[in-house]
Amino acid sequence: MTTEIGARRPKRILTGDRPTGRLHLGHWVGSLASRVKLQYECETMVIVADLHMLTTKRTREDVDKLLPNVRGLVLDYLASGIDPGRSSIYLQSAVPQTHELYTHLQNFAALDRLLRLPGLKRMALDAGMAGRSLPLGLLGYPVLQAADILLARADLVPVGKDNLAHIEIARQLARKFNSTYGPLFPEPEPLLSDIPALVGTDNRGKMSKSAGNAIFLSDDQKTVEAKVRGMFTDPNRIRANVAGTVEGNPVFIYHRIFNEDRQEVEELEQRYRAGKVGDSEVKEKLARVLNLFLEPFRERMAFYETKPDLLDRILRQGTLKVRRIAAETMREARVKMGIEDVWKAIETNR
Amino acid sequence: MTTEIGARRPKRILTGDRPTGRLHLGHWVGSLASRVKLQYECETMVIVADLHMLTTKRTREDVDKLLPNVRGLVLDYLASGIDPGRSSIYLQSAVPQTHELYTHLQNFAALDRLLRLPGLKRMALDAGMAGRSLPLGLLGYPVLQAADILLARADLVPVGKDNLAHIEIARQLARKFNSTYGPLFPEPEPLLSDIPALVGTDNRGKMSKSAGNAIFLSDDQKTVEAKVRGMFTDPNRIRANVAGTVEGNPVFIYHRIFNEDRQEVEELEQRYRAGKVGDSEVKEKLARVLNLFLEPFRERMAFYETKPDLLDRILRQGTLKVRRIAAETMREARVKMGIEDVWKAIETNR
Repeated sequence: MTTEIGARRPKRILTGDRPTGRLHLGHWVGSLASRVKLQYECETMVIVADLHMLTTKRTREDVDKLLPNVRGLVLDYLASGIDPGRSSIYLQSAVPQTHELYTHLQNFAALDRLLRLPGLKRMALDAGMAGRSLPLGLLGYPVLQAADILLARADLVPVGKDNLAHIEIARQLARKFNSTYGPLFPEPEPLLSDIPALVGTDNRGKMSKSAGNAIFLSDDQKTVEAKVRGMFTDPNRIRANVAGTVEGNPVFIYHRIFNEDRQEVEELEQRYRAGKVGDSEVKEKLARVLNLFLEPFRERMAFYETKPDLLDRILRQGTLKVRRIAAETMREARVKMGIEDVWKAIETNR
Repeated sequence: MTTEIGARRPKRILTGDRPTGRLHLGHWVGSLASRVKLQYECETMVIVADLHMLTTKRTREDVDKLLPNVRGLVLDYLASGIDPGRSSIYLQSAVPQTHELYTHLQNFAALDRLLRLPGLKRMALDAGMAGRSLPLGLLGYPVLQAADILLARADLVPVGKDNLAHIEIARQLARKFNSTYGPLFPEPEPLLSDIPALVGTDNRGKMSKSAGNAIFLSDDQKTVEAKVRGMFTDPNRIRANVAGTVEGNPVFIYHRIFNEDRQEVEELEQRYRAGKVGDSEVKEKLARVLNLFLEPFRERMAFYETKPDLLDRILRQGTLKVRRIAAETMREARVKMGIEDVWKAIETNR
C-alpha cells in the first residue's frame, strides 16, 4: 500500500467550527461563503470540533448544550449551502484516530514554540487562564488541529491571518514526523483569507454571539427587522437632514456586502452623505436585503427541521467517510512507527 | 448503569513497564517479586507501555525493536511467575480509549505543576532535552500514566518514592474530572515500595541495562557465571587473606537477597571479614545461588519460547480484557461529558 503523497487526486480541504452556538452573518462573510464555493473545486471536509470546544468549555450548561449545538451547527452548514454530497460534515470526537495521532504528534511539539503562539495567549485570556497555569490541553490546541488536518491528509486549510501560525505548527509536525518515521503526511498549505471580520450591529468590534451584536442565519424575518432597526449608525445624525458618514457605518457596510442592487446602494450613500435620507429608510431597505439574502437559508433550514433523522444521517455519513480515511492514515503511521507489527502479532483491533 | 465507585470488588492494581529491553535482577527486586505476590490478593493489570516508550525513543532501531521488545517483556513477565490466569498483561497502544481519555485529562493538567515534577526533569535530561524546548508529549507523560490508571479504575499503583508525585497527578486529575463532570474515577492510592534499588555488578549505581551492569532474567548459566566472576568486590582485598568489607559489597548484597541458605551467607561473611575466604569461592557460591534462583525462570521461558503463539495469545487476551473495562469507563465518561448523546444521535461507533 503506497502513501498518498504525490498521488493525483483533487485537492482536499479541511475546515470547520467548534459547536458553541449558531452561526451568523459574520461566519458567512468570514468562512461559509468561500466554503460553499470551494466544495465545487475541492474535496471538502467540514469538522464539527467538539474536542476543541471541550478545551475551554466544560460547565454543566456546556455539557447539556453539546448535542443541540452540534445539530444547530450542522443545520447552519446545510442551510448555508454546504452540500452533503460534496462535503463531508463530521464529528471530531467520533473519529477515534484523532486522539491516537494527537498523542503521537505531541512528541514532536516543542513547548516553547506553543507558548509563543499569540492565538493561544488570546484564547487563554478569553477563558480566564494565563501564563504557566495553562492547562496542557490548551497548549495542545494547535497540535490537536494538526492531528485533524494530517489525519485527513488535507492539502489546504482556509485560515485567517490570526491563525496562520497554527498551520505552520501543523506543517512543522508533518515534517518532523516524516523525517523521523518516513514520508507520510503532505504539508498542508494555508488558504489565507484577507476578508476583514464583519463588524457587529453595535459597531463595537466584530460580530460575535457573545457580544450580542450578531444577526444569525437562523434569525426569522421579524428578528432581522428588529435587529436592523436597532443598529448603530452615524451618531452625529440627530435628524434625517444632517449630512451623514457612510465610511465605517455598519448599516452601509452591510448594504455593500449583501445588497446586490449596486445602484440602490450608491444612491442611498449619496443621499445619506447629503442629508437627504432618513436612517429608517436605509435600515428598512437593509432589513429587506438581509431577509431576501436569508430566504434560501430559511428554506433549507425548514426542509431539514422537518427531518431531524436526515441531519443526523448526514453527520453520520460524513463521519464514517472521514473515519475510513483516518483509519488508513493511522494504519500507515503505525506501520512506520513499528506499532502495527505488534498489533498484527496480537491480532487485536482487526 | 452505576459507576464502580464504592462498588465491592477486589482491589485493582495497575503496574507495568516500557518495552525497552529485557528485565534483570534489579527489576525482580524492585517490582516483579511484589507483583507476583500481589496477583494472589488483587486484580492485577500489567501494562506494556509502548506509548510511553515512544515519548523518548523514536529512532529506526527503536521502531525495529518494538515487537521483539514487547515479546521479550511479556516473556520475562511470564518467566517471573506473572500468571496470565490472574494478571492481565496488555498492550497500551491497543487500548484505544487510552488516547481518548488522555486527550480529555489534558484539559485538567496545569502546565506549571507538570514543569515542577522532578521525575520529568530527570527524564528530559536523560533524553537530552531540557527547559522550555521540552516536547509536549514529555510533559504529558504523567497525564498519560493517569489515563492508564483511571481507565482501568485502578485502586492501587505500586510506585517508588521517585514517582510518588506522578500518582499525586493522577489523583488530582481524578478529582478535577469528578468535580467537573460528576463522580467517575476512584482516586488511586500509591503502594509505596521502600526497597532500595539493587546495585549493579560494577557497584556503580543501580543495576540497569544501559549501564551494562545487569544480570538478566534471561541470562543463561554460563553468562551468569561469567558476570558474577567479573563482579566488583572489596578493592582493598588484593589477596584472599586480607580482611574484607562485607557492607556495600555487591557480591554480599546479592548473597543476602538471593541465597536462601542464611547459614552459608553468615559463614561466608565471617570468613570474608577475617580474611579466610577467597573472592572466587564467594563468587562461585553466588553464581550457583543465582543460577538456582533463575532455574524456574528458565524453565518457564523455555516453555513459552517453544510456543510463540501462546505468548501473543496471552497478550491478546489481556488486552481484550482491559479494552472491555476501558470501553465501559470511557462510555461513562462520555455520558458525563455530553459526548455520548451526540454519538448516539449519529449512531456511529455502535
